Amino acid sequence: MLPFARVAIIGMGLIGSSLARAVREAMPTVRLTVTDANAAVRERVAELGIADDVADGAGAAVVDADLVILCVPVGAMAEVAAEIGPELAPDTVVSDVGSVKESVLKVLGAALPGVHVIPAHPVAGTEKSGPDAGFSSLFKGRWCIITPPQRADEMMVERLSEFWRRLGAKVELMDAPHHDRVLAVTSHLPHLIAYSIVGTASDLEQVTKAEVIKYSAGGFRDFTRIAASDPVMWRDVFLNNREAVLELLGRFTEDLVALQRAIRWGEGDALESLFTRTRAIRRQVIDEGQDTDKPDFGR
Amino acid sequence: MLPFARVAIIGMGLIGSSLARAVREAMPTVRLTVTDANAAVRERVAELGIADDVADGAGAAVVDADLVILCVPVGAMAEVAAEIGPELAPDTVVSDVGSVKESVLKVLGAALPGVHVIPAHPVAGTEKSGPDAGFSSLFKGRWCIITPPQRADEMMVERLSEFWRRLGAKVELMDAPHHDRVLAVTSHLPHLIAYSIVGTASDLEQVTKAEVIKYSAGGFRDFTRIAASDPVMWRDVFLNNREAVLELLGRFTEDLVALQRAIRWGEGDALESLFTRTRAIRRQVIDEGQDTDKPDFGR
Repeated sequence: MLPFARVAIIGMGLIGSSLARAVREAMPTVRLTVTDANAAVRERVAELGIADDVADGAGAAVVDADLVILCVPVGAMAEVAAEIGPELAPDTVVSDVGSVKESVLKVLGAALPGVHVIPAHPVAGTEKSGPDAGFSSLFKGRWCIITPPQRADEMMVERLSEFWRRLGAKVELMDAPHHDRVLAVTSHLPHLIAYSIVGTASDLEQVTKAEVIKYSAGGFRDFTRIAASDPVMWRDVFLNNREAVLELLGRFTEDLVALQRAIRWGEGDALESLFTRTRAIRRQVIDEGQDTDKPDFGR
Repeated sequence: MLPFARVAIIGMGLIGSSLARAVREAMPTVRLTVTDANAAVRERVAELGIADDVADGAGAAVVDADLVILCVPVGAMAEVAAEIGPELAPDTVVSDVGSVKESVLKVLGAALPGVHVIPAHPVAGTEKSGPDAGFSSLFKGRWCIITPPQRADEMMVERLSEFWRRLGAKVELMDAPHHDRVLAVTSHLPHLIAYSIVGTASDLEQVTKAEVIKYSAGGFRDFTRIAASDPVMWRDVFLNNREAVLELLGRFTEDLVALQRAIRWGEGDALESLFTRTRAIRRQVIDEGQDTDKPDFGR
């Protein structure tokens, strides 16, 4: 039996459009209605033929759905919730794919009191954006973290879990604040730092931007990839996971300053010992299947 | 005509062993003698059969060579120079592959007054180390920056350039201090920051190391790859390019603190505008052929 029969997806960017494709492939009998705030995107999605219906607005899209997934930037959740609220049937599950969970739970919980709000976060994506960037295998073998509120309906949580498993994801339950702390480390801080260093590098006087780009294979290249991620999505992540990100940034800066001091005073042993420790962590990332061991070029 | 007929490579790690393989492939008639300070590495290189001779020491390796390339950590240059000095013929070209050039030029220039010291830096590598990690195509399509001293013999510089071009590299001449400033941005700072963030992440109390590794596909993963690079090599890079790295670190910290402030005060426009600017730089890295446009998974 299908976990859900009528699914609505709001927002057809990289994640929303990947989700539509994945649902089509894994559960072809699901009735799939999608929409996007941008008319050009709606038109493109209709051309791509990755949904049964492309609705004109979020309100129209959710009528009759038993699962609604919001694939919009975290900062747009409140507005979309206001639009869909009046159209939702009482037992509908409303979920999302945002990288921050506590604020989403708060916003959706308050705006949609009569339905099952069960936020989720598939830890998957690329640095690309838009409906053409999506692909059906995006969630295969990746984690999807579901963060149910304290009094969530267990059957609905299980149905949402099953939905994600059918798309190939591995499901983990977590409370929202802990999710936000974990992702602050594994995703938000790395993005912030990549954005920052790419900004710093493009503002120098003695080294030209052309040189930075030309010799970027030395390591910088990898930061540019991360720093090419969707600007609005990431703006909203930082504004909505402010506390965890700021706390972590404080620690990071502290550690970096210690490293700076070791370089200034020529403390080679301190440097070597850190660099040896971090190498071991790479080994564990590979053992856990979170990256391949294939060497990357450049540097 | 071959640019050099008898080449000696000192140090058989990732770069040295790649160089040996590449020379064999591109210039099979070159007489290739190699060595390494580590007896186990010498033995392994002999087994791999990637050189004509494996000498017992650096001094023995360079006898009769017309090109000597030091593929050792930057901090080991002085010691190796002292070993090979007495054995070098007067017109030998002595070069290297280190990521820092001003200090190498100074050390080798002072220790080896009678020969042609012409430092070089192939901007290529992977996060792997050791003779088994090398491969012959490592330098293909990558830049090799040659930093001749002011009164270098032009013919010898051209011969060294031709040598690298035959291995598939694109050659660029630069003065050593400028090289060090460019690489501080494109390579040294990214490595330092990756090492630092991986260290920070593995020291947290509220988020376990297992969780960090499990959800590393969100961005952290890419930092672990960079932070898996050779610890001794990188220790020496930071100790030998101290001024440029510290200056850049100061700027980076300044920019990061400004970003931190924007998050604290909810200045979404400032965040979005930086994130949009950095995205454009990614485009240029791809246009320059320094990375592929293939999206990466995770996040």
